[in-house]
Amino acid sequence: MGKLLLDYGSGGKASYRLIKDIFLKYLGNIYLNKLDDAVCLEQIKSPVVMSTDSYTVDPIIFPGGDIGSLAVHGTVNDVAMLGARPKYLSCGFILEEGLDLALLEQIVCSMAKAAARAKVLVVTGDTKVVPKGAVDKIFINTTGLGELMLQAPLSGASAKPGDVIILSGTIGDHGLTILSRQKGISFDTKIKSDSAPLNVLIEKLLNQVPEVHVLRDPTRGGLATTLNEIARQSQVCCLIEEKLLPIKEEVRGGCAFLGLDPLYLANEGKFVLILPEQYERQALDILKQDELGKDACVIGKIQSAPIGKVVLQTTLGGQRLLDMLEGEQLPRIC
Amino acid sequence: MGKLLLDYGSGGKASYRLIKDIFLKYLGNIYLNKLDDAVCLEQIKSPVVMSTDSYTVDPIIFPGGDIGSLAVHGTVNDVAMLGARPKYLSCGFILEEGLDLALLEQIVCSMAKAAARAKVLVVTGDTKVVPKGAVDKIFINTTGLGELMLQAPLSGASAKPGDVIILSGTIGDHGLTILSRQKGISFDTKIKSDSAPLNVLIEKLLNQVPEVHVLRDPTRGGLATTLNEIARQSQVCCLIEEKLLPIKEEVRGGCAFLGLDPLYLANEGKFVLILPEQYERQALDILKQDELGKDACVIGKIQSAPIGKVVLQTTLGGQRLLDMLEGEQLPRIC
Repeated sequence: MGKLLLDYGSGGKASYRLIKDIFLKYLGNIYLNKLDDAVCLEQIKSPVVMSTDSYTVDPIIFPGGDIGSLAVHGTVNDVAMLGARPKYLSCGFILEEGLDLALLEQIVCSMAKAAARAKVLVVTGDTKVVPKGAVDKIFINTTGLGELMLQAPLSGASAKPGDVIILSGTIGDHGLTILSRQKGISFDTKIKSDSAPLNVLIEKLLNQVPEVHVLRDPTRGGLATTLNEIARQSQVCCLIEEKLLPIKEEVRGGCAFLGLDPLYLANEGKFVLILPEQYERQALDILKQDELGKDACVIGKIQSAPIGKVVLQTTLGGQRLLDMLEGEQLPRIC
Repeated sequence: MGKLLLDYGSGGKASYRLIKDIFLKYLGNIYLNKLDDAVCLEQIKSPVVMSTDSYTVDPIIFPGGDIGSLAVHGTVNDVAMLGARPKYLSCGFILEEGLDLALLEQIVCSMAKAAARAKVLVVTGDTKVVPKGAVDKIFINTTGLGELMLQAPLSGASAKPGDVIILSGTIGDHGLTILSRQKGISFDTKIKSDSAPLNVLIEKLLNQVPEVHVLRDPTRGGLATTLNEIARQSQVCCLIEEKLLPIKEEVRGGCAFLGLDPLYLANEGKFVLILPEQYERQALDILKQDELGKDACVIGKIQSAPIGKVVLQTTLGGQRLLDMLEGEQLPRIC
């Protein structure tokens, strides 16, 4: 298929061909096909939930996904965490001159599959081609719009003492996968990214469980950072037990080998769910019926003190404070 | 203020400081200050108009603007062209490790001023820091949401034979400014970008003029490409007269010197307005009262044939077809 030329981002004829031959071929729908610079969304109901993320992951294709599927999942999940049903995505590509067009097509095809699975439409987009060296291959921004399904949006500020903390599955998978690829380490085991759209499962959960206090996906900064944000926003303490943390054996081994802490590794297909203890059983039943929640479990509870802190009950019986991520474990993990 | 470190994009403590010290300082509002991964917009009314654009302009600061103000104006204008009132922006930064923090602050401050002038709020954002060399300094994506002010969105498909074509001001200013800087050419004249938010003027226009058929901003690809899009979408011919085209003397001179055609140069503060002849006078009166429309004039009219074509009536009395931009005049103009 050849290489991407600067012409393809000119706004002229070549741009039009690129859009038609690759973007519309896979992502086309009644909105995107209009090719106007903006789109009118008649169907969306207020209140509207909005989220944006730029994706710069390196490598762009990795075990369990690629930058295209990640860009759909990540933004869809952020919209869902407020208690909203994602409906529409915008998509901005920044592409490097000389990029392999077959690779671009593969990424766009992957986005289309991810969008279909998450039941969202890509309704408007933008493509920029920059000279060789001005960007590393391909960066994607997606901005998502959804409809709030609840009376008020969920936030990190509603955790209450006595609530249980549920984690929807294992941690560390995405971060370790990307890091090992970046370092050129290939594990013999089946470590792969957990990148997945969580919105359909979350909608099921919110439809059935009468009271949910917090939903949050532990992406950059990992579980420890996410819990710290919640502890601060809610002015409570998150107490979690090390022995309850779901971590795959191979991820635990890989982290030990590389000196990484899975509590600080990014996840792209998991969420933290905080709710009153009385709904624990019901929530876990719903989660475990779904492939994306089959390893869900309680990992701890909310206490009133120490305020704004996360405490880890270690397997050895001690306690230690878990701080937010300080410094950068991994650049370009998402 | 120092340099940007990879830590600042980690999602941890350093990210939080960067967000607080630079982004919230200038752009803060009740939505953005929540620092959730998504935002709930209770106030926006359906139908919602959405547009996205990534900005990669080089140089990032240029006469008449910078990447920050351009990222606000460009997206606000795209939303306005559908006949909508822009209200909210999301903003995704991709920043290069080692970027001068004072420069970042200058850009963010400029965005804040541009947003205030355009009467929009930046309600959610994302920051990625990538290793040195993976991006050239700073790229920004903005996605805009607005409320439709009309019964139906405007599109390029509604031009009718007999309509007049009005241009809101001079062409070529932005494209020539950026190109001359990229080539290291410094004109002694006052050529500068026309980057500006058009939405307030457009709202005035739509409130007062009973019938508008097409609004479109001639950005990448220039006026010739925009008119070609309209001619195709509306299945009409756009006939424009060379002698009526508003082009600043210094832009005309610069283009002649560099072998550029101002008809294909990007504009960032102009729009094409197509409407029935009976409203020409009224529209021009409104435009000319505004600083952003003071050079507005009729440049031609819509004919029924040749279908899908743009015809230029030259000053010498001949006619020639103006095609869409073929190939790339300038990379990284926006």
